[in-house]
Amino acid sequence: MRMVDVITKKRNGKELSEEEIQFFIEGYTKETIPDYQVSALLMAIYFTGMTAEETARLTKAMVDSGETIDLSQVKGHKVDKHSTGGVGDKTTFIVGPLVASVGVPVAKMSGRGLGHTGGTLDKLESIEGFTIEMTKEKFIENVNTHKLAVAGQTGNLAPADKKLYSLRDVTATVDSIPLIAGSIMSKKLASGADSIVLDVKTGSGAFMKTLSESEELANEMVSIGKNLGRNTVAVISDMNQPLGFEVGNANEVKEAAEVLQGKKVTDLRNLSLELASHMTVLAEVFESYEQAYSTLEENLDNGKAFEAFRTFVQAQGGNIDMIDDLSKLPTSKHHIDVKAEQDGFVTEIDAESIGIAAMYLGAGRATKEDQINHGVGITLRKKIGDSVKAGETLVIIHSDSDQPKDSINKVLASYKIESSPVEAKKLIYKVIK
Amino acid sequence: MRMVDVITKKRNGKELSEEEIQFFIEGYTKETIPDYQVSALLMAIYFTGMTAEETARLTKAMVDSGETIDLSQVKGHKVDKHSTGGVGDKTTFIVGPLVASVGVPVAKMSGRGLGHTGGTLDKLESIEGFTIEMTKEKFIENVNTHKLAVAGQTGNLAPADKKLYSLRDVTATVDSIPLIAGSIMSKKLASGADSIVLDVKTGSGAFMKTLSESEELANEMVSIGKNLGRNTVAVISDMNQPLGFEVGNANEVKEAAEVLQGKKVTDLRNLSLELASHMTVLAEVFESYEQAYSTLEENLDNGKAFEAFRTFVQAQGGNIDMIDDLSKLPTSKHHIDVKAEQDGFVTEIDAESIGIAAMYLGAGRATKEDQINHGVGITLRKKIGDSVKAGETLVIIHSDSDQPKDSINKVLASYKIESSPVEAKKLIYKVIK
Repeated sequence: MRMVDVITKKRNGKELSEEEIQFFIEGYTKETIPDYQVSALLMAIYFTGMTAEETARLTKAMVDSGETIDLSQVKGHKVDKHSTGGVGDKTTFIVGPLVASVGVPVAKMSGRGLGHTGGTLDKLESIEGFTIEMTKEKFIENVNTHKLAVAGQTGNLAPADKKLYSLRDVTATVDSIPLIAGSIMSKKLASGADSIVLDVKTGSGAFMKTLSESEELANEMVSIGKNLGRNTVAVISDMNQPLGFEVGNANEVKEAAEVLQGKKVTDLRNLSLELASHMTVLAEVFESYEQAYSTLEENLDNGKAFEAFRTFVQAQGGNIDMIDDLSKLPTSKHHIDVKAEQDGFVTEIDAESIGIAAMYLGAGRATKEDQINHGVGITLRKKIGDSVKAGETLVIIHSDSDQPKDSINKVLASYKIESSPVEAKKLIYKVIK
Repeated sequence: MRMVDVITKKRNGKELSEEEIQFFIEGYTKETIPDYQVSALLMAIYFTGMTAEETARLTKAMVDSGETIDLSQVKGHKVDKHSTGGVGDKTTFIVGPLVASVGVPVAKMSGRGLGHTGGTLDKLESIEGFTIEMTKEKFIENVNTHKLAVAGQTGNLAPADKKLYSLRDVTATVDSIPLIAGSIMSKKLASGADSIVLDVKTGSGAFMKTLSESEELANEMVSIGKNLGRNTVAVISDMNQPLGFEVGNANEVKEAAEVLQGKKVTDLRNLSLELASHMTVLAEVFESYEQAYSTLEENLDNGKAFEAFRTFVQAQGGNIDMIDDLSKLPTSKHHIDVKAEQDGFVTEIDAESIGIAAMYLGAGRATKEDQINHGVGITLRKKIGDSVKAGETLVIIHSDSDQPKDSINKVLASYKIESSPVEAKKLIYKVIK
């Protein structure tokens, strides 16, 4: 087989066979096929797309290119959740304990990575003493005992995806739905879950800006999951503004803990319940979504979910005092009110700009070497639809500098205030099974 | 400027500016831009195309990437001719002397390269003693004195084109009209002619199989020439069967010499007159095409064109006896008649297969290291439209082996003989100015 023939076939809009896709992924991983042929193929895929079968073959080949995590020692049906990424998204901290509270095991592998705020691991490390360092045996034991554990990603999972992602980044081939779907799903599948719930964000703060793109991506991922024998459900949720009110690290943990204690942070609570409901139905703990939803809601209100969270934090060495008294979580030196300059209604909040403002404060990493500052962040006081008077606080900036000018400007620019209110956005646009 | 942004822009179907194209070509030539970004851009160009201005910018940048040949010491208006390549195409040997016979200087740079038969240089080397080795001064002097000289290509012409061509070959990005047009024109423009006549072949034996593709390529090249200040005319001519009757090296020189002596090899003579007429009109030797055509026709019939050929061969050290007695040109050991197996009319001759059959005999090079055998080749006795009886000779194979089985089979398979004749193909489909 010659790579140039594989490229030609794809360029001509034909479907690549399992052998052809394996040939390309294996060759690329082993470096017998050069970057320049792969980038030409990626651009051809950008233009001609891939069928559902092809995308599944690509995903499988990427999974097969490296190690996979063996969770067979974990008892019960393991469900993983993945979000395509948004600002203020701390659902993992709620969904994990919530699902654990009804006995569904969550064995979560998570990363740090770059971003406006830290990754799941960084955020959890806001809690003094919390560690993700443990042996594989301890990890499995924790999941079996407490139904929830979070570890740093180990092993060489889907190395072909890593190589392809770096190449796509510099060859303008990131924005291809089959390639995005394959990339996400290859990592999820290598992580060993039995079923997967995907939270596909849509809107100005999401990677996918329009509902139709988000739907396309969701369909593609669900189709890959099914093709490769995993039950997969995708929820398309709104990311036209940050989720909840807190953006940062410690403050996001705090907000999640409050929701776990029954606090009604509407969008965050409802989305968490939605995701957890699908997860527990897939795990066959409940027969219907409605049954799942109402039981899970109870567990938020009766303290069971919060208790699961406490147990989990303790099991991983976290200082439980910080959870029992959330005011003990790290915070910043200064808290600066950013005030509205005019009367009106909030009609837009550019989530990405809020994220960047938080990164300026030190909440996220621009380069791998950057250190996370757990105490800094942003608290929104007004969200889309709220009325506001000139001089009222829009946002509180938690900063270690007393004049975080760049963040203030970024926050102010992200708010659009108009004389008439807009219709509230939906939280959940669609569920794709 | 970042290459990824240039790729994104092209991928999105936008026009690249002069600066962007220069950036990419310069960076690629100097190896500051890697192959994998260039191949992604090439694939994006394959899908989104280029405007006429962009293609001209690309061509100019490729010319500027290396040296250009300075023909300013050559007196008069220099016209070059380029063919996109076909089987049996020996028009260069006729057109050069013909144009020289009316005082138009032809300073021809030519290559060897790979192919079914040799390149222009290889074919000329069929003549004992003929050499293309001469100083630049001698070359210019020969052109000024005899109006015709042929030299091997020297200097680093359009190195960006060479690099791009190698990359296109392995990334399935050869078949892009703007890239093909830019590649051909960059080499022609670097060779220093004032005007250019292009012979764009169309049909089964040509790179462009359909008239519409050939027209597209011709239009693109004429537009590049004009954009960059050179008068350019393209003639679209038939390549559904070999041109003339001879395919090889020495036998092609022989056939050309016969046409120069007035022999009526219809397609070869008429195409040569067509191309030479446009060249001499561009050189402003004649006011009209008709005037040019009739004078040039006279010069074929009155011996002037042949005399120009003799002078040229002598000036470059060729044994003139071989030209005055063409039977002295090299020939092969065996001459094998390939006979028709049925009665009927020749309706197709696959030119490419005839070319491959000649290559099998040793007339061309499959790899750079191969040696040309000047005496071998193929003589067609029947062309499209001819009636044929079973047992009549279709083709004579000139071979050093007495059983050139592969060539015989290839030749037989290339002929289609049917019970009813087909309409004769046009020789000249279109002239684009």
